[in-house]
Amino acid sequence: MRQEHKAEMKARKRNVRLLVAYDGTNYHGFQYQNPPVIAVQNVLEEVLEKIFGDKIEMAASGRTDAGVHALGQVVNFFTDGTIPLERVPMAANSLLPSDITILEAQEADRDFSARHSAQSKSYIYKILNAPRPDPFLRNSAWHIKKELDIASMEKCLKMLEGKHDFSAFRATGGPDVSPVRNIFSAKLKISDREKLPYENGYWNNTDNGKIIEMRFFADGFLYHQVRNMVGTLANVGMGRTSAEKFKEIFEGLDRTKAGATAPAQGLYLEKVNY
Amino acid sequence: MRQEHKAEMKARKRNVRLLVAYDGTNYHGFQYQNPPVIAVQNVLEEVLEKIFGDKIEMAASGRTDAGVHALGQVVNFFTDGTIPLERVPMAANSLLPSDITILEAQEADRDFSARHSAQSKSYIYKILNAPRPDPFLRNSAWHIKKELDIASMEKCLKMLEGKHDFSAFRATGGPDVSPVRNIFSAKLKISDREKLPYENGYWNNTDNGKIIEMRFFADGFLYHQVRNMVGTLANVGMGRTSAEKFKEIFEGLDRTKAGATAPAQGLYLEKVNY
Repeated sequence: MRQEHKAEMKARKRNVRLLVAYDGTNYHGFQYQNPPVIAVQNVLEEVLEKIFGDKIEMAASGRTDAGVHALGQVVNFFTDGTIPLERVPMAANSLLPSDITILEAQEADRDFSARHSAQSKSYIYKILNAPRPDPFLRNSAWHIKKELDIASMEKCLKMLEGKHDFSAFRATGGPDVSPVRNIFSAKLKISDREKLPYENGYWNNTDNGKIIEMRFFADGFLYHQVRNMVGTLANVGMGRTSAEKFKEIFEGLDRTKAGATAPAQGLYLEKVNY
Repeated sequence: MRQEHKAEMKARKRNVRLLVAYDGTNYHGFQYQNPPVIAVQNVLEEVLEKIFGDKIEMAASGRTDAGVHALGQVVNFFTDGTIPLERVPMAANSLLPSDITILEAQEADRDFSARHSAQSKSYIYKILNAPRPDPFLRNSAWHIKKELDIASMEKCLKMLEGKHDFSAFRATGGPDVSPVRNIFSAKLKISDREKLPYENGYWNNTDNGKIIEMRFFADGFLYHQVRNMVGTLANVGMGRTSAEKFKEIFEGLDRTKAGATAPAQGLYLEKVNY
C-alpha cells in the first residue's frame, strides 16, 4: 500500500496543499503506521481518499511524535480528484474525528513539497507552572509544581539563539544529519491564569499558577531537539542546573550531560514557512 | 455498598470539605454509578478511601451530567482518618487520574453539607464560534460555525436575570420541585483567539473565530436549565429565533417551545457559594 510509485502519484493533475491542526494525544505520531497502530496520516489519507476518489499518499513538513500536537502542520499530495478545494475543509472535517481538523486547502505549484520546500519552522512548548495539576491541560501542557526561575530560563534561551551545533540536545540514535541549526528566536511568554472559580476568594490558599510558553523559531530542528532543550531549561528553572552549567552542557555537545526529554504533550508544531 | 447508614457515617470525627476540578469527558457524570459504569464520585471515593483508611461516602453540591465539567465542585464526607488535610490534595492527586484534581481540602463544621448548605452557584457555558472546529476544544466547548449575533443574545440574557419561573427551560421528566429560580446575573464575555499559526498570514482566509463564554449565577438551577437556556440563546444568535420570540418562549413556560439542549461539553460548574 505504501509502495506505490512516486512518479505515478506525481503524474496526477493537481498538487494539493493542506493546513492541518491536530491534538496528538490519541495518535502514534503523524507519520503513517501499519494498522492496528494509528497515526494522524492514516486517518487523513483515509478520509481524503473518500473525498478525492483516488489513492492519497501525502508528504508532511515533518513528523511529529506520539502525543505531540500541531497548530499548523502542512501536507501535500497529488490527485486527479476534482472537488473544488474551498469545499475540502468542511467536507473532510465532517468525516474526520474531532481531534484532527483541516483548516485550509489550496492548490500548490507542481514542484511544491511540504517536506522539501520548508524554509523554517516554529514550535511552541507549554508548561503549566502551578501547585496543582489542571484536568483541562493534562494532554496539552507539562505540569511543573515548583515555581520556575524565569530570569535564568530566559538567559539560557538567549544562548540558544543563533547558528550553533545542537549535539547536546540531539536524540541519541536519530538520523545522521548535520547537528548545526540556526535558531532565529527562542522566547518565553507568561500568561496568568484566570482566577476561576476563586473570584470571591473563599479558598484562600489556592494558587492557580501560570502558563509558560516557549517558542522556538528556526531553519529546522534535530530529532527531539525542542523537547531536549526544554527538559534542560526546566532543570534551570527548577534550580537543579545553573545558567552557567547550561552553557557548559550546550557547548559540551554531549547529549548525556543534558536534561531528560520533556514530555510530548506540551509540544506544538506551530507553523511551517515556505 | 451505598446503603451504609448516614448516622454511622456522621458519627465519625471530622467533616472534610474538598474543592474539586474535573474534565467530565470520560465520566458518566458526577454521581456514583454501579460499576462497570464510572462516575467521578466512584473514582474520588476509591482514592480517598486509600488516603483516609475508612469507607468514604461523599455528598456533592449537586450532580453534573455526563460530559459536563467542574472548575470548583464542592464535596464533603465524614471520616476518622487522621491525615493532615493540607497533605490531601497532593496525596490524592498522585493517585487520581489526570482528569480529576483536588484543589483544596479543609475541615468543615459538623453541620456543613456540600449539598444542603449551598446558597448559590455559577455555571459557565463556552461556545467556539468559528468557521473551523478546533481539535483542542473538542471536549470543552460547543462549536458553532455561523457567526452569532451577540447583541441579540445579550438582550435575551438580560431577560433571564431576576426571579422567574423557568419552566420553559426545565428538563422534561426532572424532579418535581418549584420551577422558580433567581438568576442574579447572566452575562456574556467574548475572547478573541490567538492568531496561531497565522501571525505572518500566509493563509489569507483563515478565521480563528472567537470564544463566547456565558456565565450564569443564581440561587440554584433546574435540571438541564443552563443547557436548555443556552440552546435557545444559540438559536437567537444564529437568527433562527428573534429576541421577541425568545421572550414569548420564556414567558410561555412550555419546554417544548424552547430550543434543543446545548451539548454537555460546553458546560462548567464554576463555583458553589456557602
